[in-house]
Amino acid sequence: MQRCAEWLVGKFERMGLEARAEPTAGCPVVVAKSPRDPAKKTVLIYGHYDVQPAEPLNLWTSPPFDPVIRSGRIFGRGASDNKGQILAHILGVEEALAEGELPVNVVFLIEGEEEIGSKHLGTFLETHREELACDAIAISDTGMAAEGYPTLSYALRGIATMEVRVKGPAMDLHSGIYGGAVANPVTAAARLVASLHDANGRVAIEGFYDAVQPMAPWEREAAKESPVSDEAIAAQAGVKVLAGEAGYSAVERIGARPTAEINGFGGGYQGEGSKTVLPAEAFFKVSFRLVPDQHPDAVLAMARRHFEKHCPAGVTLEMTDGHGGEAFFLDPMQPAGKAAQRALEEVFGKKPALTREGGSIPILTEFQRTLGQPALLLALASPDCRAHAPDENFPVENFLLGIRLNKALLRELANG
Amino acid sequence: MQRCAEWLVGKFERMGLEARAEPTAGCPVVVAKSPRDPAKKTVLIYGHYDVQPAEPLNLWTSPPFDPVIRSGRIFGRGASDNKGQILAHILGVEEALAEGELPVNVVFLIEGEEEIGSKHLGTFLETHREELACDAIAISDTGMAAEGYPTLSYALRGIATMEVRVKGPAMDLHSGIYGGAVANPVTAAARLVASLHDANGRVAIEGFYDAVQPMAPWEREAAKESPVSDEAIAAQAGVKVLAGEAGYSAVERIGARPTAEINGFGGGYQGEGSKTVLPAEAFFKVSFRLVPDQHPDAVLAMARRHFEKHCPAGVTLEMTDGHGGEAFFLDPMQPAGKAAQRALEEVFGKKPALTREGGSIPILTEFQRTLGQPALLLALASPDCRAHAPDENFPVENFLLGIRLNKALLRELANG
Repeated sequence: MQRCAEWLVGKFERMGLEARAEPTAGCPVVVAKSPRDPAKKTVLIYGHYDVQPAEPLNLWTSPPFDPVIRSGRIFGRGASDNKGQILAHILGVEEALAEGELPVNVVFLIEGEEEIGSKHLGTFLETHREELACDAIAISDTGMAAEGYPTLSYALRGIATMEVRVKGPAMDLHSGIYGGAVANPVTAAARLVASLHDANGRVAIEGFYDAVQPMAPWEREAAKESPVSDEAIAAQAGVKVLAGEAGYSAVERIGARPTAEINGFGGGYQGEGSKTVLPAEAFFKVSFRLVPDQHPDAVLAMARRHFEKHCPAGVTLEMTDGHGGEAFFLDPMQPAGKAAQRALEEVFGKKPALTREGGSIPILTEFQRTLGQPALLLALASPDCRAHAPDENFPVENFLLGIRLNKALLRELANG
Repeated sequence: MQRCAEWLVGKFERMGLEARAEPTAGCPVVVAKSPRDPAKKTVLIYGHYDVQPAEPLNLWTSPPFDPVIRSGRIFGRGASDNKGQILAHILGVEEALAEGELPVNVVFLIEGEEEIGSKHLGTFLETHREELACDAIAISDTGMAAEGYPTLSYALRGIATMEVRVKGPAMDLHSGIYGGAVANPVTAAARLVASLHDANGRVAIEGFYDAVQPMAPWEREAAKESPVSDEAIAAQAGVKVLAGEAGYSAVERIGARPTAEINGFGGGYQGEGSKTVLPAEAFFKVSFRLVPDQHPDAVLAMARRHFEKHCPAGVTLEMTDGHGGEAFFLDPMQPAGKAAQRALEEVFGKKPALTREGGSIPILTEFQRTLGQPALLLALASPDCRAHAPDENFPVENFLLGIRLNKALLRELANG
């Protein structure tokens, strides 16, 4: 992490920006600035240099940290999320500086803890509020609605994560000698997981939907007009049949509806063949994707109550809260949003799709709250980018368009 | 495995028996015989030299394959199941031979595949029927009803195992970008596991109990008089509260009622912290403990139908049958059973408990079918032996009593 932060500082300094990697209680935050001209607007460009774990390594076609280009795509961990996308903005500013003057003051803010919930960035924003003051925030950490389709995302889901450990006997037991009389923690954990959804695919935690606003009619219309077909989503995911909450399209389920997703589950014998144990414990990792007005802490409290209520007899629970962040929503018709739409149309040659994204950038609400300015989500990642998964990739074309988009965006924000 | 079989052959040869390790399609079968005197009865002594995997290694107090004695117990993988128990019989015969003549002809049959369902022993019994002809079969591969309490087990549960792989997307997906619209294989697997039991702890597979005989009134009485208390079972297992099928005591649940037990479950991220993936697949390993008249193949077929019927939309199943074996039942009042009870009472100084065991020795029904003789299950393992688990152990006292029991048993069988 330290080496990556230092590489960024060196890159920015060679471009002529004032840059530093500032320590935090976690990973350093990289800040780089052009000289601040009070006559110009200021644009803050945010990204992150941390990545998800690369496991399972055996499912990568080429090693995750030796990037290679195949069929016009760069493969490697972080290719899209977020090293490739933020680098396009860096190179856009580098080109503009080489060609003359920047149309706006630029502040780069690149953190190293996005994938673990931007733990220390909130405090950093508070304490650097003046230095980071700006008129708009530009972020490319989202996916395009369809391949080559310019996309301005006006909403992102929030997130809340927790881990549940289900404890049973003091040790693994012989499933013959004890089986039938001692509660099985794996079965208990499975029953808890099964209790999370009802038969309609809705999250069955009491109160989970209380704060959820219904989608506005114009949003449901926009979702219908989405360039993203169910077939395309199924093909990208590699499934024959989609699934999910009854009454919503796939685009709506992903962008506008909250979920409860199991990210990992383990317990008992994991090797080849059979081992007839009654396991001592099991665990599962659950993440909730949230929509506006759902609060992570409130959702985690509801989930705790749900698991306690549904906990089978004979086992005990240990629940640990993980990271969380609120959902994000920005009216795409305000001036900065319109400037972003113009830049996208200029570079990509067609009107951008306005979409809700399923992913989470928890710090976005912090940006709006602390800096008080609109955050613009300009997608460069391919829908097939495999972020967080093996064979993560980024189209070289998107990388080059991203460089042009940065320049167009800064110009349009200067003018509009 | 080969080295262990060869060690046994060497040991038997030094005792003066004719011994060999006969290859099979799997692990070798060790056969050792005293010269066959047609005037004497013949007793076959069965055991196994294979053991369960020793994982998880970090939960052992001392290394599983470096046996040590602590507080009067030998700790090590196989200490009870089954190396310690079969060795007591071997040393009993060795002592008797050193003291003079054996009261019966002895055939040792020690296999290396008991823990994986005695795959090749059935064929071996068929092809060696004449060589193995006997009047009774003695086996010490079960646990005593209570510490120091002589125990003749008259029933054992059968077993049927299978592994279910639940397949979803072609790769791990970002749980934000796809979550809500793509079925989660871990959640689906958990729902399948949860579907295995009803609210009363009964197995919910259609037809599962059709062949199950109700317990006879004398058996329910014997279970009530069992020296095994619920408190003792809970203490051994290290749980505060027992659980299981409504309407039965813990002893009945373990010995006389069938189960569906999850031995292992895995899917998605297994490491520290969180990784927000929607996993590509999940698996679980299930074993069914069976009672008389339940047939492993029939139960596995019912389980397949159950899982297919309950399979959530958007995932597919791959089911693999594992090993299986029928339950065992022997009337303990027939002559060989009475001889065994006399030997137990002589050595332990009190009347033996007649119990049903929860574990499985799948080959037992093969023995009875092929050799046509009663199999006597003379428990030497402690109730706290931790078979199949870390810190497996065997009391030194039981080992010494086992040597005496072997000699008394052969004498009683010769006379009765």
